[in-house]
Amino acid sequence: MEHVRVNFLREEKIDAPVLVEGLPGIGHVGKLVADHLIDELGAEKIAEIYSLHFPPQVIVDEQGITHLVNNEIYRCEKDGKAILFLVGDFQSNSAEGHYILTERYLDIAEDLGVQRIYALGGYGVGHLVESPRVICSVNMEHLRPEVEAAGGSFENAETGGAIVGASGLLLGLGEMRGIEGICLMGETSGYIVDPKSADGLLAVLSRLIGIDVDPTSLQQRAEAMEQIIAKIQETEEARGREELSYIG
Amino acid sequence: MEHVRVNFLREEKIDAPVLVEGLPGIGHVGKLVADHLIDELGAEKIAEIYSLHFPPQVIVDEQGITHLVNNEIYRCEKDGKAILFLVGDFQSNSAEGHYILTERYLDIAEDLGVQRIYALGGYGVGHLVESPRVICSVNMEHLRPEVEAAGGSFENAETGGAIVGASGLLLGLGEMRGIEGICLMGETSGYIVDPKSADGLLAVLSRLIGIDVDPTSLQQRAEAMEQIIAKIQETEEARGREELSYIG
Amino acid sequence: MEHVRVNFLREEKIDAPVLVEGLPGIGHVGKLVADHLIDELGAEKIAEIYSLHFPPQVIVDEQGITHLVNNEIYRCEKDGKAILFLVGDFQSNSAEGHYILTERYLDIAEDLGVQRIYALGGYGVGHLVESPRVICSVNMEHLRPEVEAAGGSFENAETGGAIVGASGLLLGLGEMRGIEGICLMGETSGYIVDPKSADGLLAVLSRLIGIDVDPTSLQQRAEAMEQIIAKIQETEEARGREELSYIG
Amino acid sequence: MEHVRVNFLREEKIDAPVLVEGLPGIGHVGKLVADHLIDELGAEKIAEIYSLHFPPQVIVDEQGITHLVNNEIYRCEKDGKAILFLVGDFQSNSAEGHYILTERYLDIAEDLGVQRIYALGGYGVGHLVESPRVICSVNMEHLRPEVEAAGGSFENAETGGAIVGASGLLLGLGEMRGIEGICLMGETSGYIVDPKSADGLLAVLSRLIGIDVDPTSLQQRAEAMEQIIAKIQETEEARGREELSYIG
Repeated sequence: MEHVRVNFLREEKIDAPVLVEGLPGIGHVGKLVADHLIDELGAEKIAEIYSLHFPPQVIVDEQGITHLVNNEIYRCEKDGKAILFLVGDFQSNSAEGHYILTERYLDIAEDLGVQRIYALGGYGVGHLVESPRVICSVNMEHLRPEVEAAGGSFENAETGGAIVGASGLLLGLGEMRGIEGICLMGETSGYIVDPKSADGLLAVLSRLIGIDVDPTSLQQRAEAMEQIIAKIQETEEARGREELSYIG
Repeated sequence: MEHVRVNFLREEKIDAPVLVEGLPGIGHVGKLVADHLIDELGAEKIAEIYSLHFPPQVIVDEQGITHLVNNEIYRCEKDGKAILFLVGDFQSNSAEGHYILTERYLDIAEDLGVQRIYALGGYGVGHLVESPRVICSVNMEHLRPEVEAAGGSFENAETGGAIVGASGLLLGLGEMRGIEGICLMGETSGYIVDPKSADGLLAVLSRLIGIDVDPTSLQQRAEAMEQIIAKIQETEEARGREELSYIG
Repeated sequence: MEHVRVNFLREEKIDAPVLVEGLPGIGHVGKLVADHLIDELGAEKIAEIYSLHFPPQVIVDEQGITHLVNNEIYRCEKDGKAILFLVGDFQSNSAEGHYILTERYLDIAEDLGVQRIYALGGYGVGHLVESPRVICSVNMEHLRPEVEAAGGSFENAETGGAIVGASGLLLGLGEMRGIEGICLMGETSGYIVDPKSADGLLAVLSRLIGIDVDPTSLQQRAEAMEQIIAKIQETEEARGREELSYIG
Repeated sequence: MEHVRVNFLREEKIDAPVLVEGLPGIGHVGKLVADHLIDELGAEKIAEIYSLHFPPQVIVDEQGITHLVNNEIYRCEKDGKAILFLVGDFQSNSAEGHYILTERYLDIAEDLGVQRIYALGGYGVGHLVESPRVICSVNMEHLRPEVEAAGGSFENAETGGAIVGASGLLLGLGEMRGIEGICLMGETSGYIVDPKSADGLLAVLSRLIGIDVDPTSLQQRAEAMEQIIAKIQETEEARGREELSYIG
């Protein structure tokens, strides 16, 4: 099996200049915003990504049908603007896998003409935040004024820090390919699926992309996501884990 | 060394449309049923599978003869029906290894004309179950009515969940190759080798395959398996582990 | 860097029908016997084995000179019998590495005409043993009578069990190449470098190979080995470990 | 992605007979000395090294600009002597990665004509040291008198011990390529960034290379480094870690 397998569901008219990444992370802020956008904009799934760097398992849906774990690429056109989305429920199992998967994400982005990537995430602060800011990083200096004009904050930059996983590597490895990268992280406690943080993030992102998106269902979507997560945790506790034990 | 090595003991007349997988898992339910079927149906070993993704060790048998750890494929014909079995004492050591091994299992299945896979396992609930159900998942929607008609339950599907390891990947990766996959999991506490759960699982599987198998020795087989497991644990505690230490 | 690198120090007249393996393990019994034999028989080093599956470090000797961690092959001729030794201070870091390294050990063995391998080790019982037996396993059934005649015991075979690491895989993977494999494990507490256990092991091995070796310095050698191990542990505690930390 | 990627910023006149390695380690002693030398000697960055064996992350600088984690090679000429520096904030994530990265460091060194490597580090003793010695190891015996003449100590050699990570492998793998290797380790508690230990190390290294370097800003530099490390730890505690979790 190759390290990463990409199945395109449709081959034509799928290019776009912009890719929005919303893979799982702190407070599920990035995922919440990306899933919301896909729904509100009526984006269409154009590709599925499978990898041996994802957990070795299938997900069982409500009909009892199994689905091999994967990430997905969606695409929409809104106000004449084409946007791609990289979403899903998984990050790599291993450090090396993060590099291998992100290089492949970038191969796809390059093939589809992407010139800018927005990596969405949460910025965990460990306590509830009254007015969550959107903490930003960019992979090229000239991007900063535009991000600030859209309401993004660089106030925390002075403390240094790191961005781990796909979001970080999309900016770092993207820079080497000349792809602009902007990481938007909504401040969040990190303990709950955080619709307030997502709301702020969505506002900054909408301004940057130049589209108009209704945020009203974010609250509801966050509650649904919380329930799914709670259910999964319950199930996992109840069932234990398919132990990889053996007898001699 | 290649990642997986398959030694066929016989090359002709070994194809079959059905493969039953019973590798180790929760409550050893799947393994118990598969081993029972092999014995009752007089199945013959047709292949041995070795891999560097298995633990790096040999098993010592009662004669003091060593056997490199492996999984095995058996085959039988019963009532004009040819059935393959994938059994053994090992799952992969690593997440990547699960993918690599399962792809190879599927290569073998495809080569032998397999059109449907039954993946057997336990469904751990953490407490004793009076009347264990057989919880089911399928990799194609059209399979569900047939499984329900045979007594399989999809009641737990609504809680979502995941199937980890070879059972899950046989369905997930099998679907990509167009091979039907049905996962049958006997409810079990997860603490013992569970003949009651196995009995229910055997009944559903027999109906699905259309064969008749005597379950009376399941109880006895479960007790024997418990003893082997207990002995191994004892030995391991006594001997410690071949520690991979070194001196300078 | 290739996975394993073998540097031969001399290319001619280095074949031999017998290989004795004494890599680190429980109670350092196997290592103690192999090192003793090399010394008593005046064996000569013929090859060094390096691998990225060994720990990433150099050993500093008493002169302050560094030596990249490696295993070694020695050779001697005694009473017209040529014997190879596989010794050193390391086993693989990882499960896969055990398979990769052992396949390479067997490549070397095959190239040098080895027809039989003696894998030496300890059999940890967790308590002091008054009269340590030599517990044996073989990879082909016909070898058992010869081993029993030399004083080896198969009494523990009935309890099953496993042999982990290079010793086990030399027998398991060796069998596939038609190389006879005999594993001799001296009963030992597992807590100390055990000269009494080594003495019994040496006796059985000498009878099997058909050579005569003076065991009198085993006691002394074990004490020296204990001191080296104690010193290393002291040093390690004092120095801490070269932590793989980083700053941002 | 290849395992290691080296981007040269300039291709000509970058060779040098000497390489000084100061990657992170105990007490940051080696890093402190190497960074100090680069600053004092006005060394110029000539190459960046990226690898999937580094952590999968970007570092955010004070302007909010991301930088893919990497190590770097600097070069200076002082008193007619050309010197290369291998510095950065990372060691490999994995044991195998240490071998793979170090082989690549040595490829670069060989290409640039390096004949001798100084590997700098700390020698952790777990308590404060009044007059820290510079503990030394060499990869070829003939180097020892020269190191002793420069004030390096071999007193601890008798206790054996190991040098782990890039420093150790540069000596061990370097020896195989005929490159001289000298490891200089400043005694240090291991608990703080230690300017006193660095001062002693700098003195020995300066004598060995035959250059004159002002040590006065070492104290200040150590304090700045402490602050950066503290800030990062604070940030990490506050933000938590970009958890690689997922939902189903």
